[in-house]
Amino acid sequence: MSGPSGVGKGTVCANLRHRMPELIYSVSATTRHPRQGEINGINYFFKSREQFQDMIANDALLEWAEYVGNYYGTPRDFVDRTLASGKDIILEIEVQGALKVKQKFPEGVFIFLMPPSLEELRQRITGRGTENADVIDHRMSVAVEEMNLLRHYDYAVVNDEIDAACHRIQSIITAEHCQAKRILADMPQLPAASEKA
Amino acid sequence: MSGPSGVGKGTVCANLRHRMPELIYSVSATTRHPRQGEINGINYFFKSREQFQDMIANDALLEWAEYVGNYYGTPRDFVDRTLASGKDIILEIEVQGALKVKQKFPEGVFIFLMPPSLEELRQRITGRGTENADVIDHRMSVAVEEMNLLRHYDYAVVNDEIDAACHRIQSIITAEHCQAKRILADMPQLPAASEKA
Repeated sequence: MSGPSGVGKGTVCANLRHRMPELIYSVSATTRHPRQGEINGINYFFKSREQFQDMIANDALLEWAEYVGNYYGTPRDFVDRTLASGKDIILEIEVQGALKVKQKFPEGVFIFLMPPSLEELRQRITGRGTENADVIDHRMSVAVEEMNLLRHYDYAVVNDEIDAACHRIQSIITAEHCQAKRILADMPQLPAASEKA
Repeated sequence: MSGPSGVGKGTVCANLRHRMPELIYSVSATTRHPRQGEINGINYFFKSREQFQDMIANDALLEWAEYVGNYYGTPRDFVDRTLASGKDIILEIEVQGALKVKQKFPEGVFIFLMPPSLEELRQRITGRGTENADVIDHRMSVAVEEMNLLRHYDYAVVNDEIDAACHRIQSIITAEHCQAKRILADMPQLPAASEKA
């Protein structure tokens, strides 16, 4: 699950956690310092720069990026182990990172969380109250650029209302499990059509 | 929505009607006589053989078939008018008919209702108590043949339990409305990426 910065990915994910306890959440690795209450292995895997650079060198990350001086990335091992156990895993991820994951997992399901409108996105970014006008303008132009990447995604979910958005994501997960191509891939061979059952 | 004979299409559809009153149900045309309580235009459009043959001649049917001496078909006009009004329409339809509809509406969503197992399907067919062993064997071999057509469908929904099957179909409808390709087709052009929002 991805989408432009400020669209509400974190809030939607927190809500999904309550609704779908069976869904596993990918835990990112980062070099930034833990904030109060954050727990290693739950909120993030907290790493030193050296540890993180080793993970990059060992291709242990599905994607990674540097943001405001800190590294963030998705450990490949945790994703692989979850999928191997037959469970669904959700990645809450920036747009550029999602496109990198798609290169490695084209069979994944890529959901783009959309603001109801660009005006609404500006209000949400402004509403955080922590940025000046230039920063907001810059983040808006990045967001518009990111919206143009929607065409690389399978689904677009408008985050107009948190419960509605979560319901749509749950429906997408249910529907994807019903896709004929997935079921055919898992199905034992049917008896030949001419054979009596 | 389609699936082998005996899988429970009618029961699932009746249940969906209660759950999704906003969904429009396609009404078939038939030359068979109305059963007690059946209403023209609600259960079927009841037609004479001459009227039905005129509809065939005028290409007024999306698909049609003759079954035990009676014609059954899907009037194209009702489907077209519903789609033009922006509503969703569901067709409860035999497997062969669904494949004909797919030729005319490749953008439709094709759901295959599956029995939990072939043993369970035989029990359901037998359970109706109206058929002899030869008829049941014949219907089973037709059903197996129809199961092999699953690969032409978008989704497979196992009808293990009526509420669960209906929930899956509702999820599929919700998810399809979130498909990026549908949303992109309906979306006004975004501002160019370089332009400030």
